[in-house]
Amino acid sequence: MIKLGIIGSTGYVGAEIVRILAARKDVEITVVTSESFTGKPYSEVYPSLRGIFDKTCEEMDIDRIAHKADYFITALPHGVSAKIVNQLLSKGKRVLDHSADFRFRDVKVYEEWYKVEHPAKDLTKDAVYGLPELYRDKIKDARLVANPGCYPTCSILGIAPALSNKLVSAKGIIINAASGVSGAGRKSDLSYSFCETAENFKAYGVSSHRHTPEIEQELSQLSGEEVVISFTPHLAPMKRGMLATIYMDLNDTGLQLEEIHAVYREFYKNEPFVRILPVGKFPETKFVAGSNFVDIGISVDKRLNRLIVVSALDNLGKGSASQAIQALNIMAGIDETEGLIRPGLYI
Amino acid sequence: MIKLGIIGSTGYVGAEIVRILAARKDVEITVVTSESFTGKPYSEVYPSLRGIFDKTCEEMDIDRIAHKADYFITALPHGVSAKIVNQLLSKGKRVLDHSADFRFRDVKVYEEWYKVEHPAKDLTKDAVYGLPELYRDKIKDARLVANPGCYPTCSILGIAPALSNKLVSAKGIIINAASGVSGAGRKSDLSYSFCETAENFKAYGVSSHRHTPEIEQELSQLSGEEVVISFTPHLAPMKRGMLATIYMDLNDTGLQLEEIHAVYREFYKNEPFVRILPVGKFPETKFVAGSNFVDIGISVDKRLNRLIVVSALDNLGKGSASQAIQALNIMAGIDETEGLIRPGLYI
Amino acid sequence: MIKLGIIGSTGYVGAEIVRILAARKDVEITVVTSESFTGKPYSEVYPSLRGIFDKTCEEMDIDRIAHKADYFITALPHGVSAKIVNQLLSKGKRVLDHSADFRFRDVKVYEEWYKVEHPAKDLTKDAVYGLPELYRDKIKDARLVANPGCYPTCSILGIAPALSNKLVSAKGIIINAASGVSGAGRKSDLSYSFCETAENFKAYGVSSHRHTPEIEQELSQLSGEEVVISFTPHLAPMKRGMLATIYMDLNDTGLQLEEIHAVYREFYKNEPFVRILPVGKFPETKFVAGSNFVDIGISVDKRLNRLIVVSALDNLGKGSASQAIQALNIMAGIDETEGLIRPGLYI
Amino acid sequence: MIKLGIIGSTGYVGAEIVRILAARKDVEITVVTSESFTGKPYSEVYPSLRGIFDKTCEEMDIDRIAHKADYFITALPHGVSAKIVNQLLSKGKRVLDHSADFRFRDVKVYEEWYKVEHPAKDLTKDAVYGLPELYRDKIKDARLVANPGCYPTCSILGIAPALSNKLVSAKGIIINAASGVSGAGRKSDLSYSFCETAENFKAYGVSSHRHTPEIEQELSQLSGEEVVISFTPHLAPMKRGMLATIYMDLNDTGLQLEEIHAVYREFYKNEPFVRILPVGKFPETKFVAGSNFVDIGISVDKRLNRLIVVSALDNLGKGSASQAIQALNIMAGIDETEGLIRPGLYI
Repeated sequence: MIKLGIIGSTGYVGAEIVRILAARKDVEITVVTSESFTGKPYSEVYPSLRGIFDKTCEEMDIDRIAHKADYFITALPHGVSAKIVNQLLSKGKRVLDHSADFRFRDVKVYEEWYKVEHPAKDLTKDAVYGLPELYRDKIKDARLVANPGCYPTCSILGIAPALSNKLVSAKGIIINAASGVSGAGRKSDLSYSFCETAENFKAYGVSSHRHTPEIEQELSQLSGEEVVISFTPHLAPMKRGMLATIYMDLNDTGLQLEEIHAVYREFYKNEPFVRILPVGKFPETKFVAGSNFVDIGISVDKRLNRLIVVSALDNLGKGSASQAIQALNIMAGIDETEGLIRPGLYI
Repeated sequence: MIKLGIIGSTGYVGAEIVRILAARKDVEITVVTSESFTGKPYSEVYPSLRGIFDKTCEEMDIDRIAHKADYFITALPHGVSAKIVNQLLSKGKRVLDHSADFRFRDVKVYEEWYKVEHPAKDLTKDAVYGLPELYRDKIKDARLVANPGCYPTCSILGIAPALSNKLVSAKGIIINAASGVSGAGRKSDLSYSFCETAENFKAYGVSSHRHTPEIEQELSQLSGEEVVISFTPHLAPMKRGMLATIYMDLNDTGLQLEEIHAVYREFYKNEPFVRILPVGKFPETKFVAGSNFVDIGISVDKRLNRLIVVSALDNLGKGSASQAIQALNIMAGIDETEGLIRPGLYI
Repeated sequence: MIKLGIIGSTGYVGAEIVRILAARKDVEITVVTSESFTGKPYSEVYPSLRGIFDKTCEEMDIDRIAHKADYFITALPHGVSAKIVNQLLSKGKRVLDHSADFRFRDVKVYEEWYKVEHPAKDLTKDAVYGLPELYRDKIKDARLVANPGCYPTCSILGIAPALSNKLVSAKGIIINAASGVSGAGRKSDLSYSFCETAENFKAYGVSSHRHTPEIEQELSQLSGEEVVISFTPHLAPMKRGMLATIYMDLNDTGLQLEEIHAVYREFYKNEPFVRILPVGKFPETKFVAGSNFVDIGISVDKRLNRLIVVSALDNLGKGSASQAIQALNIMAGIDETEGLIRPGLYI
Repeated sequence: MIKLGIIGSTGYVGAEIVRILAARKDVEITVVTSESFTGKPYSEVYPSLRGIFDKTCEEMDIDRIAHKADYFITALPHGVSAKIVNQLLSKGKRVLDHSADFRFRDVKVYEEWYKVEHPAKDLTKDAVYGLPELYRDKIKDARLVANPGCYPTCSILGIAPALSNKLVSAKGIIINAASGVSGAGRKSDLSYSFCETAENFKAYGVSSHRHTPEIEQELSQLSGEEVVISFTPHLAPMKRGMLATIYMDLNDTGLQLEEIHAVYREFYKNEPFVRILPVGKFPETKFVAGSNFVDIGISVDKRLNRLIVVSALDNLGKGSASQAIQALNIMAGIDETEGLIRPGLYI
């Protein structure tokens, strides 16, 4: 039995983790903490869980709760998270962290983009970037896994086969992405109110979004050279779902779509959650909403010798909550797909 | 292993059944038929199922496919369905029918409201109305289960405790309900196009919706007298979900909300999928979307001595697909809740 | 030239008033106040108005701004509003108030339902309920018009012809209504965030919504007896629009739908903004969204001898902002329809 | 009085034209044709127009109707449109055509992308591309105006200042755009049904959308060299609105954002419908929905020496219907902004 605690559990990521694990018999969520809802049953916060997960939310007092679980998922704001993670690790717990605090190999990059001093610099070297498709082996034994951001997961998985196989130039990559509103988290914020969001589409964080350096770090790693990208996120009027449209310059003018497609299929042939769509098909967020899948379609614009990749996932699924569960499965040494081979909702 | 065939499988009800059963190891969907998509993989029709359920859609040739399964779920238009059901039954199969063809004890009522001659009158006496909360025992051994309509399920379960306990008058019951758009099925119809439906709310079938006599039949059964109701369905701009607001006149002026609430809790105390909310709480469709639950809240308007019940379910869940699976579990003699204790999506 | 000031102008009602008046050459909005946005251009708050209405939001300092206009529209919370209205009236201004403060003839009813002491009791006798279809003559000369609530406007106009002509019983009227989210105003409130509201439908304020006594006051006036109603509002996942489904018991069993329809047409024959739909047609919110129209459809359920009326309006249109402009036109002695015969948006 | 006929009037573009012109006293819509709704009042097709525009839809019999108007707007499928336009022109009428038939200078490009033989090649040389910001003078006297596509309008206006001033390279321009669903027109098509569209985001027409050559034609004209672009449209779950995010390589590494911003402001300083947002602000579709405005925001990514432009319009506004009215005003020699300085809806 995997004993799991969730710290900062009442945000949307926490709720999705609880939802997904509710059907598992081999994982027990033994403790959930919440600053806003301490003392309230979790199912009062999310009534969809009434009768299914009624555990009471506890205070985030690590000394008092750490003994209840062996694994902890932390879903806290950056800056805050590192301190709690530190406490948990020092008590011998294994931690999956949802914040940005441990995603960066270079603390300076983190500090520059997040405008804070890193509160636990020493720990970053122990952290594994929790993308199983790239770091499965390291995740297995990690005591600290930094769960990737949703945009980075969507982007990196769409780019990795082409870039690591040197099919495309590492220069000039453009990632144009759109996310559902749940990516902003559960909060009272006019910008994310129904009337300001429905029937609206906008770009945000143009040339300045914090997921940029995270994507660059991993692409640089894959290509062996320093990669600088253009990344523009957009907000779409839907609850869940993320789609990235990625533009890359092909190195070789003779490359055919089918060849590149074969490279993508080969790259992910053993990956249970990456689906390369047939030539001519492109993903839609409804194919993956509510699931741990990432769907990828590719196209070649021969007129410009450009590779265009479209990748889609659920920002609350492979983009955060279920990706964390995938990593948890790996850490716990059980079948990585346990409880996760569930189709999305479509309707 | 339960072997199941789905006839008319590519509508939304069929897709939801496939989605829910995808995680089950004790049920195998051995055959899916589709008029529009014969020869195509199911996962091409619903790409969310790629890699999960890729079986090819077959023609609806009962002679050729009947041997593949012991249980069949039929999701066909009324009138058409009865003939196919007849064929399946004559081959000894057990059938769960989603059409209206076998929901009525009195064939004349069916013929009056559906404006067709019933194509298999003799079978109606064998059919069991598939609402487990009322007919669990009969479903167990039935060879033909008529899966209830979504509005009837939502309404009857909201009214049953009060009416069968004579707390309210059988006269003058008003059911005002709203449904998500998936209730209209998967079809190319301008009325259900995005631009005609989004940001819009409307009543339809005012005083004439075909679910009226189905509700009346069951309420009459419960009360022992002939019940005539007002039922007004509405279309809400959402994919899933149904909510009924029900007005009933209390028989006794002294009855307190808490007493009625206790009656409701008692009535459903052994029901795994009916959740009576605490006094003062009312259901929302997001509490139940994607699940087999029906949530019920009650209120007493003392000024008018009226009981107001609000009940909510997912029209594709307890309103059709997962309710059919619940009945299938009962028919197959396994745990009724198998694969169904899953929370809704909330977000 | 009508000189108009808007107090509390940056909520959705204010924004809609500005939007509608932007095209008028005979009305000048000379001052807009805003607590949250003092010193900012209005078009920074609502960038849709950039280049069209860029006036700077001022502080709500009545002494300093009163001289700028002859008419004032106040869009402030109840309780707060009355004091400001009092100041404006004492300076000889004519006021259209959007709060509930002056809608009640009986201050006690107001105090009971709104749980506050009325801050300007003496003024209530001077206030006219701003529903032109019922009080056009009084509005003309009023110095204080209390703009009706959205639900009351939708309900009263749907009921008035039947009730005032004694076609229906004053007892047992049920109003089941749904509103778009903009009815809740512009605010940072988790309950109205996109992720909590989209794909969701719920009842709220069951048996306790504050628009109940307002509707009852006017229906009592129309019928000459004390009317007590059941009113249940619902929240639909759309920005604008309101639809009420109203159930009334017919007094006379012989009444035909066509006769009642004729009564409705006659009642509103001179009304420019009430459209009685042909027999068999029912309104949808998209017919009226963005306009000052209220559309009404009627049905008779012969089995129950019940009249069912469906009425629809835009909660920001005839339900508040454009209704206020209609009243303003009347007060100013100009054509009541000036600037208001504009179709809704449909798409 | 401008007498206007609308051919193929019951699509969404036609409906929007009728809606906008409903308030005009100087334009009379004298005839509307519709294949599907011949003989029906227009307000039965769009009940929002009841009492405002009730004219009966006529057959598209040009001989019989041509005399009724001096100007005609045609909203017909490509291929079909050219023939009707030909007939109208031969009767001396002035025509605004919404199809792609007359947008191309080079008939071969049209035939290659639209896969049809052009039915009226001779007329193309008379046609003026109806983008007032670029071709105002030619529109004035044109007898045939080809109304631009929505994506081209949004893209070209976003690119023109930079490209024509040689600030950016003509090579490698990428346009990533999203549209609301009304862009697909009013039709019964499963792909645009509510349940397939809501809560979904997808790319479509990747590397193959027919608006590509239209954009390239105009950009080539502006730059004086042959421009080849990457253009990827997306479908967002909203009714109206379009937003393009455009990536261009700056020619000069020293250029500051403020300098480029000044170039944009200068370029459009006399344009009533192009709003260059302040530095740091970016457009959202809700700023322009329901209006004839296009809003443009710009950013410089210094790390990559790239200009990123975000432009937004209403696909039914500046993207089609109201842009046609702007051109009509120009053709008729009246104030170009007549009836069009109306803010969008925002909420």
